[in-house]
Amino acid sequence: MILTVTLNAALDITYVVDELVPHASHRVSHRHGRAGGKGVNVARVLHQMGHDATATGLVGHITGEQIRADLDDAGIRHAFVELASGESRSTLTVVDAASGEATVFNESGPVVTAGAWEQFTKEFVALAADADFVVISGSVPPGVPDSAYGELCAATPTPCLVDAYGSQLVAAARAGALVKPNNHELTATTGHNDPLQGALALKELGASAVVVSLGADGILAVSDEGAWRARPPEMLKGNPTGAGDAAAAAVAAGFAEAWPVRLREAVAWSAAAVPVRVAGELDIPTLERIRPNVVVEEMATDATDHHR
Amino acid sequence: MILTVTLNAALDITYVVDELVPHASHRVSHRHGRAGGKGVNVARVLHQMGHDATATGLVGHITGEQIRADLDDAGIRHAFVELASGESRSTLTVVDAASGEATVFNESGPVVTAGAWEQFTKEFVALAADADFVVISGSVPPGVPDSAYGELCAATPTPCLVDAYGSQLVAAARAGALVKPNNHELTATTGHNDPLQGALALKELGASAVVVSLGADGILAVSDEGAWRARPPEMLKGNPTGAGDAAAAAVAAGFAEAWPVRLREAVAWSAAAVPVRVAGELDIPTLERIRPNVVVEEMATDATDHHR
Repeated sequence: MILTVTLNAALDITYVVDELVPHASHRVSHRHGRAGGKGVNVARVLHQMGHDATATGLVGHITGEQIRADLDDAGIRHAFVELASGESRSTLTVVDAASGEATVFNESGPVVTAGAWEQFTKEFVALAADADFVVISGSVPPGVPDSAYGELCAATPTPCLVDAYGSQLVAAARAGALVKPNNHELTATTGHNDPLQGALALKELGASAVVVSLGADGILAVSDEGAWRARPPEMLKGNPTGAGDAAAAAVAAGFAEAWPVRLREAVAWSAAAVPVRVAGELDIPTLERIRPNVVVEEMATDATDHHR
Repeated sequence: MILTVTLNAALDITYVVDELVPHASHRVSHRHGRAGGKGVNVARVLHQMGHDATATGLVGHITGEQIRADLDDAGIRHAFVELASGESRSTLTVVDAASGEATVFNESGPVVTAGAWEQFTKEFVALAADADFVVISGSVPPGVPDSAYGELCAATPTPCLVDAYGSQLVAAARAGALVKPNNHELTATTGHNDPLQGALALKELGASAVVVSLGADGILAVSDEGAWRARPPEMLKGNPTGAGDAAAAAVAAGFAEAWPVRLREAVAWSAAAVPVRVAGELDIPTLERIRPNVVVEEMATDATDHHR
């Protein structure tokens, strides 16, 4: 079983309007709500691809109930910890009907007390004991420590993938996690413009492996076994929002595979997320078309030589 | 007891953002949610002013639960009818922090089936039997007949005030209700630019009385006892959104009073709603300042003579 962690689970609401005009009144022609947050989207992709996934994290009050009810409807197993007070956040995306352009409003989420965080950590350790692999991703709600993702990884012997940036990314690397920033997050966190140099810096901090999403340029991985770069055979058009979560799901699903296989799948799943309008879902024909044509190359690095 | 009817009850959500920019991503710095809809706001004002009010209407699913929970928190009695399927609507107001300018998104609400409408009508008749006065106001959700407000008024001997426009306003007038459009709604419905002529037209249709909100110019009433115009002694600055609901609450609260008294109160309550940021609440110092200075004048009308 793969456990996904979403500390700031959300109800993702989409409104369709004719055209967003600031300071005007709008009739919402279509409303859609579903459970979201990056870890939830990873669980959705794993579930779609036939993997046994459980979503955990923190939820609060009525919006928390809506998140759980939506996962029930989707048949996705979940084991969220309920906050004693505070309401789970919603995110709202307002889509202009004609252009498809989106305007996004992100709530910050409920404040997590020290007691609630301690309780979550205990429940997480119990859930992770039954898991083969853990994926921790997305933002954290207010009150959660800056080192939270590192603390969770350090608290379990189960291997953890952390998709984060900044202090959470650094703490996870120090705790020996497999870390998976995108290239922008990697540069912002390490100061390196070159993804390989940035990845090596996180590896030096203690990360067991570093996987970097490079958008349309594919994915880079640095591990004790070597370094690889995988590229998609074509440019995909659509919505790249869920591509990183799909890549994380593939890396998790392939926990028993060698790195070249994991990266091929990560590029193919990532590409298959792009034609789908919502995050957390793959387009299977795209997956089948891309998978045999992903190019995976080993890279020479000083660090790779050093670690061999 | 005064019964208020809100067929399309809402959860009114307010987001505060730095500045709304179309097609950008926004951090929501403040979120507030509370039960709304015009009838709910009338019940809020009546409750604040010490009158015994009960809010009814239709609610659905989890948003319906949130609406009821918020009314419980506010100490407002309610007896909503639960829809078997469909979710109550939310309305979202996005406020720019610096300018205070608001952008509004209105969901349409759940679809009401013929069976649900029949069930509501039965429950309404039972509730209205215990009421001294009924206030029906606001928009109707999809599926509710165009003549719904007229049907409700015709189904009970309890006097009804209807705050509506278009076909609902006409049906309510035909059913003998006290109708209370604003001047824009009156013009749109009757074609008369002159509020007195418009009011007389609705009176001719069968309305027991017609009360017209004229914004800063006060309120006009045409009844079997005569016609009056009441004006506030000063211009108020603020948010006029809740002024019409406050006027409806005053006209309902004064059901046993003579028209000049009802109109003086309606102008004073209406003015006292303007300094308050949200609908459904009066500023008591403003009320006390305005009330003794409202100017009420009797008007001569052919129709008044005719009915005398």
